[in-house]
Amino acid sequence: MQTLPGFRDFLPEQCAVRNHIFACWREVARRYGFVEWEGPVLEPTDLYKKKSGAEIVEQLFHFKDKGDREVALRPELTPTLARVVAAHEREFKKPLKWFSIGQFFRYEKQQRGRLREHFQLNCDIIGEADLAADIELVALCIDVLRAFGLSEKDVVVRISDREFWTDFFREQNMPADRWDELLQVIDKFGREPRERTVEKLGKLADPVFATLKGGGGNSDKLNRLIAGLRERGLADFIEIDVGIVRGLAYYTGIVFEVFDRAGKFRAIAGGGRYDNLIGLLSDGAVSLPALGFAMGDVVLGELINETPHAREAMEKAIASNRKIDIYIVIAKEERRADALAQIQQLRERGYRVDYPLTPTKVARQFQAAEELGARVALLYGDEWPQVKIKNMATAEQELAPQDRLLAHLQAQVSLSS
Amino acid sequence: MQTLPGFRDFLPEQCAVRNHIFACWREVARRYGFVEWEGPVLEPTDLYKKKSGAEIVEQLFHFKDKGDREVALRPELTPTLARVVAAHEREFKKPLKWFSIGQFFRYEKQQRGRLREHFQLNCDIIGEADLAADIELVALCIDVLRAFGLSEKDVVVRISDREFWTDFFREQNMPADRWDELLQVIDKFGREPRERTVEKLGKLADPVFATLKGGGGNSDKLNRLIAGLRERGLADFIEIDVGIVRGLAYYTGIVFEVFDRAGKFRAIAGGGRYDNLIGLLSDGAVSLPALGFAMGDVVLGELINETPHAREAMEKAIASNRKIDIYIVIAKEERRADALAQIQQLRERGYRVDYPLTPTKVARQFQAAEELGARVALLYGDEWPQVKIKNMATAEQELAPQDRLLAHLQAQVSLSS
Repeated sequence: MQTLPGFRDFLPEQCAVRNHIFACWREVARRYGFVEWEGPVLEPTDLYKKKSGAEIVEQLFHFKDKGDREVALRPELTPTLARVVAAHEREFKKPLKWFSIGQFFRYEKQQRGRLREHFQLNCDIIGEADLAADIELVALCIDVLRAFGLSEKDVVVRISDREFWTDFFREQNMPADRWDELLQVIDKFGREPRERTVEKLGKLADPVFATLKGGGGNSDKLNRLIAGLRERGLADFIEIDVGIVRGLAYYTGIVFEVFDRAGKFRAIAGGGRYDNLIGLLSDGAVSLPALGFAMGDVVLGELINETPHAREAMEKAIASNRKIDIYIVIAKEERRADALAQIQQLRERGYRVDYPLTPTKVARQFQAAEELGARVALLYGDEWPQVKIKNMATAEQELAPQDRLLAHLQAQVSLSS
Repeated sequence: MQTLPGFRDFLPEQCAVRNHIFACWREVARRYGFVEWEGPVLEPTDLYKKKSGAEIVEQLFHFKDKGDREVALRPELTPTLARVVAAHEREFKKPLKWFSIGQFFRYEKQQRGRLREHFQLNCDIIGEADLAADIELVALCIDVLRAFGLSEKDVVVRISDREFWTDFFREQNMPADRWDELLQVIDKFGREPRERTVEKLGKLADPVFATLKGGGGNSDKLNRLIAGLRERGLADFIEIDVGIVRGLAYYTGIVFEVFDRAGKFRAIAGGGRYDNLIGLLSDGAVSLPALGFAMGDVVLGELINETPHAREAMEKAIASNRKIDIYIVIAKEERRADALAQIQQLRERGYRVDYPLTPTKVARQFQAAEELGARVALLYGDEWPQVKIKNMATAEQELAPQDRLLAHLQAQVSLSS
């Protein structure tokens, strides 16, 4: 029996990579003063049907539960966030700066190894309309990438402003009820045949192509955004690109996507402002400006893997985190009970300790100590009531009386964290 | 719009509790030399249909996906573990000591606030038939509880041995194909009307009742188990109770469940040996002895909440983890750009730093500094190019030149972890 197509097992090695990614995500979000929250992975299908655009609903894992409710595995977090904020916003001072790390699901056609689940970091700021929040959010996104050792030579944040396009549509006298559809076409530009785009855009095709070619986006808002990131020394990560509009229907202002500079991968992260979504999902009961981004573990992991300095940093962090502190070598089985009593004490003090569950040759025990990355091995044998302490790095050995062992170790082995 | 019945939102306060539980779980499992892994939350329904007994299948969230596959949200981890181990065991030295922290789902009838999802710690040892592994596993389970401040006065591990009952059935000349069904009846003893139990047990009723009343279980194996836990100073957590058989069909040997001493809650944790499951799920391709336990976050959380010393310890840990390091007070808006440049530097050094996104009264900024638990506030105002450093605990203030700020802080504010 196998996993379902598009789903992953995380064996210890893959789980360590995933946990390293989670740890970096959490660490940087907390440096920015963001607090963690989480929503359910199963939600009413309606939460997505109404607000996220048509494409996402086609790709839902959805079904009727035993209580005849239409339910879906969440494809994204933002609708849940909007629901939660609409229900609880009075309990919190604004702006909220919230982040979340969780799993998301899409029934995508199986192609190019695309998965049907992935993990995402979501970071959102709720209740602040000022551009300062957009700058803070983009800076956080960049610093998360930098935490993995990725530099402005490895990644680029392409930024645009949906208002740039809505202003453009207004100038072109396009009725507002067609804007969403037109934004979808621009979002797909370059990903579908040009004739198809021309056909969909009609008389707008020429001015849209001219705008995309010209770069455009020389707006005061975008200039201030770049200036704010320059103050933080992050401007080299940024490019204005009005071709970025984001696929989801709910964005209203600044939008951005992160790509690898080499252009090998899909977007690493993406986000923007969605000032109307909370109002929509609460039927107007709560109206709060909001913005956020999501970064997935899959494309990020692929990019780290193919970026030697980032990969090296990750492997080093994982190798050091995997290590145990102490391996107990039981050289004489008569000493097993004594060893177990001390193993208990060592673990209670926070040391990571391993030992052979059953009688094992001493050489194989030392081999295990090495493979597990133990910093010291303690040998319980003929020396009892003394214990032999072997420093695994230097191979130096010393004897310590068993009742003074903990003090001896404290000097030698600092705790893993 | 609301969450589905039985599903939880984790607002920051609840998420902090959940993360505290995860951190303790992970910390103790790693002290025992267990390594982390994880499986998919969606699996083929067949994985559960065949091996876990009838009750669990009735309670599955299961459906047909768009590729016409029968799939289910996982109700438990053990079948996934057996699948993964059967596929990959050659890559690892035995015994495996693996743990996992993840979410699980059951469509239970809505009653007494029962949830339809919860998180579980799963710890398993694969490839070791010796009782030493059972002792190690029970010790780990106890030490996980102790990490939350729970003592032998708060919790009890009830231990039994399925072999005790299979020996008993053999003595009573019961055919082996009825054993599973009889174990289910014993598992439900006390939870359904006595007449119903009598009816199901037939002529076995009297001897079973006598055995349950007598305590029984005075076997050599159980005695050695207790001796092993006594060596570690953990015997006071243990009670032999042959009434414990565990509901799931796949257990084969030692089984145990953890309860609060006051008997207020359902089981906090449970597990045991399942020596045949990996063979069953791999159609005999791989046969490995195995054992494990699972501990859920819900009952554990309730018990911690109602145990004052445990609750206090948790609240203290959470409060200290929630704090930021530094709050930036922008007293003059002309200094905002200078402040932002230094915020960037401070965050790069790992400090948790927050600041007002928009112009805010100084008094309100200091209030925010206090609410967020900042250890120091840095004031950017008329003193520039000096920065005022305020120790939030002592209210002491000093001035530091902006270009020497980092050195000043290093002495005052150690990093949060």
